[in-house]
Amino acid sequence: MQPVRLSELAAALGMEWEGETDPLITGVAGIADAGPGDITFVSQKGFAHFLERTRAAAVILPPGSPSRIPVLRAEDPYGAFARLLARLEPCPERIFTPGIHPTAVVDPSAQLGERLSLGPYVVIGAGARVGDRCALGAHVVVGPDTVMGEDCRIYPHVTIREGCVLGRRVVLHAGAVIGSDGFGYLPGSAGLSKIPQIGRVVLEDDVEIGANCCVDRATSGETVVGAGTKIDNLVQIGHNVTLGQHCAISAQTGISGSCRIGNLVTMGGQVGVADHLAVGDDAKLAAKSGIYKDVPPGMTMFGYPAFERTVAFRMVANMRKIPELLQRLRRVEQALGTAGEQRED
Amino acid sequence: MQPVRLSELAAALGMEWEGETDPLITGVAGIADAGPGDITFVSQKGFAHFLERTRAAAVILPPGSPSRIPVLRAEDPYGAFARLLARLEPCPERIFTPGIHPTAVVDPSAQLGERLSLGPYVVIGAGARVGDRCALGAHVVVGPDTVMGEDCRIYPHVTIREGCVLGRRVVLHAGAVIGSDGFGYLPGSAGLSKIPQIGRVVLEDDVEIGANCCVDRATSGETVVGAGTKIDNLVQIGHNVTLGQHCAISAQTGISGSCRIGNLVTMGGQVGVADHLAVGDDAKLAAKSGIYKDVPPGMTMFGYPAFERTVAFRMVANMRKIPELLQRLRRVEQALGTAGEQRED
Amino acid sequence: MQPVRLSELAAALGMEWEGETDPLITGVAGIADAGPGDITFVSQKGFAHFLERTRAAAVILPPGSPSRIPVLRAEDPYGAFARLLARLEPCPERIFTPGIHPTAVVDPSAQLGERLSLGPYVVIGAGARVGDRCALGAHVVVGPDTVMGEDCRIYPHVTIREGCVLGRRVVLHAGAVIGSDGFGYLPGSAGLSKIPQIGRVVLEDDVEIGANCCVDRATSGETVVGAGTKIDNLVQIGHNVTLGQHCAISAQTGISGSCRIGNLVTMGGQVGVADHLAVGDDAKLAAKSGIYKDVPPGMTMFGYPAFERTVAFRMVANMRKIPELLQRLRRVEQALGTAGEQRED
Repeated sequence: MQPVRLSELAAALGMEWEGETDPLITGVAGIADAGPGDITFVSQKGFAHFLERTRAAAVILPPGSPSRIPVLRAEDPYGAFARLLARLEPCPERIFTPGIHPTAVVDPSAQLGERLSLGPYVVIGAGARVGDRCALGAHVVVGPDTVMGEDCRIYPHVTIREGCVLGRRVVLHAGAVIGSDGFGYLPGSAGLSKIPQIGRVVLEDDVEIGANCCVDRATSGETVVGAGTKIDNLVQIGHNVTLGQHCAISAQTGISGSCRIGNLVTMGGQVGVADHLAVGDDAKLAAKSGIYKDVPPGMTMFGYPAFERTVAFRMVANMRKIPELLQRLRRVEQALGTAGEQRED
Repeated sequence: MQPVRLSELAAALGMEWEGETDPLITGVAGIADAGPGDITFVSQKGFAHFLERTRAAAVILPPGSPSRIPVLRAEDPYGAFARLLARLEPCPERIFTPGIHPTAVVDPSAQLGERLSLGPYVVIGAGARVGDRCALGAHVVVGPDTVMGEDCRIYPHVTIREGCVLGRRVVLHAGAVIGSDGFGYLPGSAGLSKIPQIGRVVLEDDVEIGANCCVDRATSGETVVGAGTKIDNLVQIGHNVTLGQHCAISAQTGISGSCRIGNLVTMGGQVGVADHLAVGDDAKLAAKSGIYKDVPPGMTMFGYPAFERTVAFRMVANMRKIPELLQRLRRVEQALGTAGEQRED
Repeated sequence: MQPVRLSELAAALGMEWEGETDPLITGVAGIADAGPGDITFVSQKGFAHFLERTRAAAVILPPGSPSRIPVLRAEDPYGAFARLLARLEPCPERIFTPGIHPTAVVDPSAQLGERLSLGPYVVIGAGARVGDRCALGAHVVVGPDTVMGEDCRIYPHVTIREGCVLGRRVVLHAGAVIGSDGFGYLPGSAGLSKIPQIGRVVLEDDVEIGANCCVDRATSGETVVGAGTKIDNLVQIGHNVTLGQHCAISAQTGISGSCRIGNLVTMGGQVGVADHLAVGDDAKLAAKSGIYKDVPPGMTMFGYPAFERTVAFRMVANMRKIPELLQRLRRVEQALGTAGEQRED
């Protein structure tokens, strides 16, 4: 962002500001992440302790809340922060030049909406439809019969294969592949025979998918990513998966074929979920967990193999007690005169 | 697939059908995966129990086998299923338009076979050879001196670097990179010096490689993926690896440099194999295993670090016994009057 | 490489050679990796034991060092090996054709250096700058306002997003994505709201980044990869990370947002580092480790969750002692007549 004085920001947003200094604001961040130069916000009581230690330059607070750093005042700090964020978005026209680049190859049977940005070397297949105000970066490939809702933003080198469906405001980051074949083979005497993957992928409204992710098409039927779900980079979504709404899936996680993941599920990075499992609403899977059985709603899992969090933490703590156990057992054996093997260290 | 009645399918395949209803078939699946609307098959006795619980709409069975759901009859159910699958393959001409797109950049010294499909913006380097009936999607890049056998299918945005060799019927999914430099450096006082990676990659007949995979070229010599081996998405194959025939490698697995993997090996997702290891024929590496030493033929490994499966399962089970151990030890100590530290929980 | 006789290599490098035979050299490798046909080197005493067992065809050694295989003599074996490597580099003109391909789309406001290679379908955005002697393969996309130093080598299908900075001699392998949005959202009643990612990525001199990697731009400020750091394939670098100089990061590792990684750090494959952690200089993180707290300088970590290496190895060894513990405890209980539950196996 262009650095601005807090006073200028206050004027631009129509808000009051207070402070002994008028700091230069160079960035934005949540209260847990904010560093020097950042403006942040606190709307819930549970976050007040962050405010004491923050290195942020300024904070958005409700009227009357005390602060040792400069403040913007808003009845609804979160809403004000969201309005601020919207102002900071880089000018999309710089990144996605309006209009259709002359090198774009659009099949005559494709249907294009209004006010598009199609970058250089975009390829749009037969029967595809692209909604109004979509922006497709350089080299994006949209397969035949794929349908895309309004206001999607597709970064360079994305491949969307044939017959997929994207809702509105879907964001796909560079190099993502949507609709690749699922990994399905039948073993036989001559090796593995491919099971044709003839289903599709459906990405609902407001889905965002990270760079170099892969979302496989269903064998038949649909692989679905629910509305509002956000997926980080290098994530694998297997065929026939149903991923619910408003989930957050961190980088390098893999969800195997035919899993049914509920709404509001969060997964840390490098999680693996074995095939055909059900993960309930609001479940939390800690980073690097290896999930091998169904997870009930609301449960937090950790470990490989993964257990409910308190069980898993107890297991790790217990592992560290084995040397003490051995020592105490040896003492007991000596007291009894039954001492067995002495070869332990 | 286009939904069809079981009776129509029977007529098209020249088979008998039986059933109280004539269900609408909307998909195909193996017996373990089949859901409503699917047609499946059972040819081996070991799978009969799946048939009792399946939600499939219909099943292919040998004459005389009982079934509570509608049936197609075939002496060889697997063969009949394979014929069915072949019929369901989407028309490849819809996805890979026949002919050479006028925007394809083909070096004059490259040799092109007959009946190709080269999509928009394909780039083929000097001295490359592309076999008959190959289909290359939009934006595929084939490096100089790379050779590709007949009937390969290469999806958009694949990069095959210089001097690699692909057999016949090789399938590469979108975004895969074949022949990237291996990760080889020499440490010195001025930092890490790159060891030139001057070998190549050989993919034998019927290899299939998933979206956004990386197969590194050898330092010198060859990185080899054996005939019939299938690799899922986002897999890493390091330099100088030899991967055998008819292996199945699931998503996000990584095989480090110079490993020698046998034939018919299966690896779950997110497995890691350390460098310079040998994994024997028919070995099975469970999802997320961390392999740090050679694996004998036929062995099943699990865990991080990985052990033979029964050993690994026993270790997990034992970890859960530590609280009980502590409790019993405390009772013994009390009986003896030797009670030591009491600070355990 | 073109196979050459050891005597020819000696003549070309101006060195003496000795040996009972004049072997055909077909490759190069470090002493730990060298196989038949390779030439290697030993400069440090600590590696002499490798020399006894090596299958290499020849070795570079200081004058006077004994060897059972043919030898090239050099006062500085490492330096001689480095000179040899430089000779073996494949001719870059074969891979990156000199000049600007007529299909390259270069914005009129971009500034191009001298002696470039821009491959087919390269796209360079408004305000971007490309340094002298840079080589950009087919389909590379350079976003608006991105700046690239001299002598960079960018392989096909790389995306560098807007406003990023590359130093000199940076190498990016095929499919890598530099400057993708960080994974930052604010939870609210209407789901997750995107925090605009308005920072950039800085890759310092001599950085090398593997195929299909992702390096996310900062929320505000910079994600930095330090000079000389080498990153393998499919690695994820989160937003706001600072990665030091001369690090080596193996394939499929993920470094979460806002981590500060020191200099000369090495990470094995599939390591995960949780967000906001500090990893000290010279630390070593073993393959598949799950790092959840700060790592002091020089420490070697292993495990999930990761502990200092000797602690982690002890934990694994201890886990294997539980059956013996149970057995000994049972014996003690029997001796005391207090035998409790007998349900253990």
